[in-house]
This record gives sequence, structure tokens and C-alpha cells, in this order.
Amino acid sequence: MLNKSFVDVPADHPFPIQNLPYGVFSPRGQTPRCGVAIGDFVVDLAMLVNAGLLTHREVDLRSAFEAPSLNEFMAMGKPVWHDVRRRLQELLGEHTAVLRDDPSLRARAFHRRDSVEMHLPAQIGDFTDFYSSRQHATNVGTMFRDPANALLPNWLHIPVGYHGRSSSVVVSGTPIRRPLGQTKPADAPPVFGPCRLLDFELEVGFFTGPGNALGHAIPIEDARDHIFGLVLVNDWSARDIQKWEYVPLGPFLAKNFATTISPWVVPLEALEFCRVPTGTQEPEPLPYLQGDEEGLFDIKLDVAIRAPKMKAPHVVGRSNMRNLYWTMAQQLAHHSVGGCNVRPGDLMASGTISGSEPESYGSMLELAWRGTRPVKLPDGSERTFIQDGDSVVMTGYAQGDGFRIGFGEAEGTVVPAREG
Amino acid sequence: MLNKSFVDVPADHPFPIQNLPYGVFSPRGQTPRCGVAIGDFVVDLAMLVNAGLLTHREVDLRSAFEAPSLNEFMAMGKPVWHDVRRRLQELLGEHTAVLRDDPSLRARAFHRRDSVEMHLPAQIGDFTDFYSSRQHATNVGTMFRDPANALLPNWLHIPVGYHGRSSSVVVSGTPIRRPLGQTKPADAPPVFGPCRLLDFELEVGFFTGPGNALGHAIPIEDARDHIFGLVLVNDWSARDIQKWEYVPLGPFLAKNFATTISPWVVPLEALEFCRVPTGTQEPEPLPYLQGDEEGLFDIKLDVAIRAPKMKAPHVVGRSNMRNLYWTMAQQLAHHSVGGCNVRPGDLMASGTISGSEPESYGSMLELAWRGTRPVKLPDGSERTFIQDGDSVVMTGYAQGDGFRIGFGEAEGTVVPAREG
Repeated sequence: MLNKSFVDVPADHPFPIQNLPYGVFSPRGQTPRCGVAIGDFVVDLAMLVNAGLLTHREVDLRSAFEAPSLNEFMAMGKPVWHDVRRRLQELLGEHTAVLRDDPSLRARAFHRRDSVEMHLPAQIGDFTDFYSSRQHATNVGTMFRDPANALLPNWLHIPVGYHGRSSSVVVSGTPIRRPLGQTKPADAPPVFGPCRLLDFELEVGFFTGPGNALGHAIPIEDARDHIFGLVLVNDWSARDIQKWEYVPLGPFLAKNFATTISPWVVPLEALEFCRVPTGTQEPEPLPYLQGDEEGLFDIKLDVAIRAPKMKAPHVVGRSNMRNLYWTMAQQLAHHSVGGCNVRPGDLMASGTISGSEPESYGSMLELAWRGTRPVKLPDGSERTFIQDGDSVVMTGYAQGDGFRIGFGEAEGTVVPAREG
Repeated sequence: MLNKSFVDVPADHPFPIQNLPYGVFSPRGQTPRCGVAIGDFVVDLAMLVNAGLLTHREVDLRSAFEAPSLNEFMAMGKPVWHDVRRRLQELLGEHTAVLRDDPSLRARAFHRRDSVEMHLPAQIGDFTDFYSSRQHATNVGTMFRDPANALLPNWLHIPVGYHGRSSSVVVSGTPIRRPLGQTKPADAPPVFGPCRLLDFELEVGFFTGPGNALGHAIPIEDARDHIFGLVLVNDWSARDIQKWEYVPLGPFLAKNFATTISPWVVPLEALEFCRVPTGTQEPEPLPYLQGDEEGLFDIKLDVAIRAPKMKAPHVVGRSNMRNLYWTMAQQLAHHSVGGCNVRPGDLMASGTISGSEPESYGSMLELAWRGTRPVKLPDGSERTFIQDGDSVVMTGYAQGDGFRIGFGEAEGTVVPAREG
């Protein structure tokens, strides 16, 4: 692999040439199109196609990269993703002159990242959220059900998940309005008003590739070929609304007011180097869930809060994607095994990723343990849940040998609830 | 209203001039486009636009009707829907010569319905399924939880619903493959295999119109303006898979393998005449759910089974849309009250509509009461759930004075599960 670009990228920068995450951006005043991030720049991919530098014998990359979403590219499948990635690494490499030595072309194809607007990377057909961290499921079960039987009976057999709302998935930077809804005081009828227990959930999601036809399935041994890349996900949650509504059909208004994702989709191929062994799964899963060795990833994940008066976000939780029990391949195999069709651009998130230590939990519910252990912020204030004006910032990276594969950030600032 | 067309439509026909449902069809060998049904014909709407017969001063109807989905038209809103409908009733009326007396234009614009292929009427952004029949919720609660407390505490306060899977919503006539999945025998570990308790759910769904921006809401008094029209919905369900998976996050694989809808979207305006009073809601709902008087519809609903050897479907359940507790406006107001954005072409279904009599139940689970009261078919066989080869056919209509507003049908035939 080429490992150095003519673009200057410090060793701790999230977007070196080893990463090359894809996103949808618009230069000032122009329409959205597909790009790839390197260092502090975005490269306009359609511009490279139009300059004759980026072609593929089998597919129409111009159509794919001129589109305002990555869906078409996601549909092209792993061999194309691989070829395009290799070509981009070549084009951006320090020893390739064609871009490096053509200031005019570079001026057209390169944009400073801080000068462009980012959009959702895909038109998300369906959004699914799993519940795949054992520690998180155990914490929630301990708080709300029974510490002695914190995990529900199906949890160790099924990568439990539910269908989320795709319309309200928003890109990092979108303000998050505190939701209104019904909550139920003890021994009184339900009341309507702003959510009082607003929370984040620290997750990682993946965008799907070609997918499967209805009535077919993606066997676990093929699942990796259908994972295009990963993003950070903040599955905003209204705990008080959730508590009253979720039995028996699951979370609804408690989750569907907003889900924030990071704008840059890190290719799965860029993360292969940080795979770690799938943990012991006991009892042994059913055969359709077996065989995904090295199914986890050593990706450090931070969640931070920035209160209005704070200059910088303060990290309140440090987790790692290796804290998952079920792997992405298991999630995808399970999701499709009944015949449900997966389409290019579907988003599937992990569920809150909590580690075993209290400081590694991935939600305020757990970090402040249902309000009993308030989290202190540097401005002297305390949090049990998220307040109006707070920004929640999630970041993540995998550390390589001399480089980092970063995700950028998933940020959302909470604005007050609508009037009545 | 004009009440007679130059197209011959018998009084018991589902698609008289008072109906004019919208759909997406393709004439043999041609691309999908928007049409309207009258009698045994489909009228190509883009053809009417191109002939200069159908225009609107504010919107581009050509773009809307040349599209392979109704989303663009759905986005245009109620005043446009009303104007277009009125103009179509005029054009198709017996006293309007322009189409009636132009055989050449009619030959281009009219297609026999039995000669065209029907498609999904919209690109469904998100599919939501409610649970709004009190009898159904009571029946399920009685069977699976506690007859003395069959309704869960939130049910009379919240139009309970959950997010479904939009990718697997299919148009009537699409074969339904029996899903595979995990089920849990009593006192033994879970097993993997074909669903054994395959069921239908008799529902009505609505497609949404303009919708709301994220963080805003659709107040109940505006909700009717965001309902474009209605379709029949069969929310296929795998009861054995559902039982094992659904706690705590709700149904997932039990529902996401397929949902069948009827192809013709009956405009809400065509159904105004059959509105009936919203039933008594006690306890009184919270204010944001109040005020939708006459929120129900007197729409007869039948569900029938045709086993492979039977010539015609046999009706096993006769229900009515007036058997709902929560109205569509209440569902929509609730769905959006937390700030969740609704988009044109979202589909929201009622949940199983069961009446108070055992023959009016809307699922096999209830009709055969969890397998204890098998349903007899005319071929001498019995059913507790749906077998391979069975077709499930849902139909519905509202009876007017001398005409019927029909829905056509939502049909699906079950094919055997995939091998392992």
C-alpha cells in the first residue's frame, strides 16, 4: 500500500492516505457531490473522473460520483470499491505527478474541508439499530429490570435489533431539538411536555453495499462483502419517553426525533488492519451466526460534552468498538436470514457500546447511573442527562503504525424544545 | 360532484369515477409511470398532461406523473390533489367530449388494467405500523399476557406504534417466501428453521403528503391535510419468531420479511363521505391527540384464503376500519409530536383491525385463537396458520349511494422457505 501522500497529513490526523473516507459535500454555492477526504482537503471525485484520471472498465463512475449521495457507488460492490480506493491512493501518493504537479487541476478538484458543507453520505433506505454490547444490555437490564437476570433470555442467542427511523438521521452539526412527548409520573396519569432525560448513545454504524433480493439472505461468510464502510452514530434517546412507550413494540418517539452520524464513511478496507478476535460467545450461536472470526475492531471511541460556557468538549466516556459482543457480519447475517432485503445505503448501527469500566460506558444513563452518579464538567456544573445548549461530540480512531484512521466527529447541539 | 363517466362502470365495481385511485403502472414493455384507475382501465396521467388536458398553474404535473412513483405528486399537497382530482372527474365525465370522443387519444392514454403491471405506488421512505385496534390489542394481551390486564397501561394513552421495514414492502401479487428464523421450544435452546406460525394482519395504511420539517410537528388539526390516500396492508407476521425475539425492542425478523400493499391509493377525498364518529376515548387523551371528530371510516374489510386446490378465495375474516380506536390523524399527530419528520410517501399502517365478534378478527392468531379453533376451508382442510401455497387476499370498500369506493386487493401467495 502507498503510505504517503503529497498532501501534508500529520501522524495524528484522522484522514491520512491510508483512510480516504467517502462523503457528500458541496463547495460554497454548488450542488452536493461525492468526495474523499485527505488531510484538510476534500477531493471532488467527479472532477477526477472528468479529468480522465479515475475510470473503471465495468461501471460508470461519473454517474456515481456526480450524484448527491454515495448509494450508486455503494451498490457497485467490493471489487469496484477496492479498485477505486487503490487508484485514489495511487493518484494521491507522493510519487504520482499527475495531480501533485498540476496546480490548475488541484485547484478545481481540491477544496479545503473547512470551506465545504457536508451532507448525509447516503440516501438511507432503512435504518436499523442493534443492541450488541453485552455490558450496555446488562447495565440497562440491571437498572430497569432485575440485576440477577439483567440479560434477557434471547440476548445471547440473537443479535437483538429494531427498525429505526431513517428520515431523522442527520449529519454532524445539525442542531438537535429536545423532543416533546408523553411521560408517566409514578401514580399519576401521563403528562405531555419536553423530555427531561435526554441522552446520547455512543455507537458505530455501517453502510451496506449491494445487498440481497427479497426472500434471499446474506450468509455470514459473504457479509463482509456487503459492508461499505463505517460512521459514528449518536442515537439520541429520550429516556423518560422511552420508559412509558416501549412495551411491547419497542422504542418509537424516544428515538425517532434525531440520530446524528459523522459525515465521512471510513471504508471497511481501511479498517482491516485493526481487526481483533471476536470474543467468546457462550452459548455457541446457531450455525448461521458462526464463523466470523476476527469480527471486531480496535477502534477507540470518545464521547464528550461541551456546555455553552466551555471552550472545548470534555470527554465523559471512553469506549472501544471491540467492546461489542455481536459482530457486524453477525448482525447482517441475522438481519437478512429471514429474507429481508438489504439495499445499498441502508444504515445499521451497533447499539450503545459500553465497556466494562464505568468510565467506558456509552450513555449518560449508564455514566451517571440513572442519575445517581452525576458527571462533573470542567465548568463546575454537573450532568445526569443532557441539557439545552450542550453539544455532544463523538470521535473515534484506529491507531496504525505511524498513522491514524479517524472518523472525524458526530456532533449535535441541543436546542430547547418547541413551545407546546 | 360529477357522478357518471363515459367509461362503463357497474355499481359494484371498485373503481367508479367517485374513486379515481392513483397507482404506478407499466404498459407492456414500457417504463413505470403514474396512472389513475377507472373501471377496468388505467389512464396514463402523463399522457393527459402531454395532450394539454391536465395542467396546474402552480406545479409541474408532467414531471410528477412521468415519474415511476407518486412521491412528487404526494409532496404537492391537498389543494393540488383536489384540483387534479376535480379535473380528472371532469375529463372522465360522461358530458365531457374531449377524451370521450377522441378514440386516438383514448387509445394512447387508456390501458386495460389486466394488461399492465402494477408497482409500488411510492418510494416509501419510512414505514410505520401502529397497533390501534383495541380488540386486537386485547386479544393479543389475553393470549400472551394476562386476560385480566390484557391492555398494557400505555395503550389507552398512546397510539402505540413501531418502525417497520420499508425495503420489504411489496405490491400485491408478489410471492411471499416463508421466512426462516430462530424460535424457542419450551425448555430447550432456540432452533433455526422455517417459521411454523405464519400469519397475516388485516390493516389499512395511509401515504403521507407534504409532511413536516425535523423538530417541528403536524398538529392534529392539520393532520388530514397530510394524508394523501389509503391502501390495504397485509403485515405478514411470523408468530413463533416474534415470540422469541420481541422483548425488549419489538418485532424485527418476525415482520421484516414482507409487507403486502394494494397497488391503488384511494384518495382521502374519495372517502370523506364514509367518515363515522371517532369512538369514545376514555380516559380522555392528552390535548395534542384531541379534536379529531369523525376520524374513523366505514370501510368494509375482508380477508380470504385460497388454498392451492380452491378456485376462489374463502373469506375467513370480515372486519371494518371503523373498528379502530385511534384515528389516522391521531397517529400522525403522535408520530410527529416529538419532532420526527414525515416525508411525502411515508407509509403508516393501522395495525391489525379486529372487530368485537370472533369472525371479525384480522389475523389467524385471533381467528383460530392461538391454534385452538381451526378455521375450516371449503376444500375440507383446516387452518390455524398459513400454509405454503395459500394465497391471502384482502379486499375492502366503502358503500356509497349507488357506487362503491373499492381498494382492489392486496394478495400474496406463500412459497416454501428457502433451503437452510
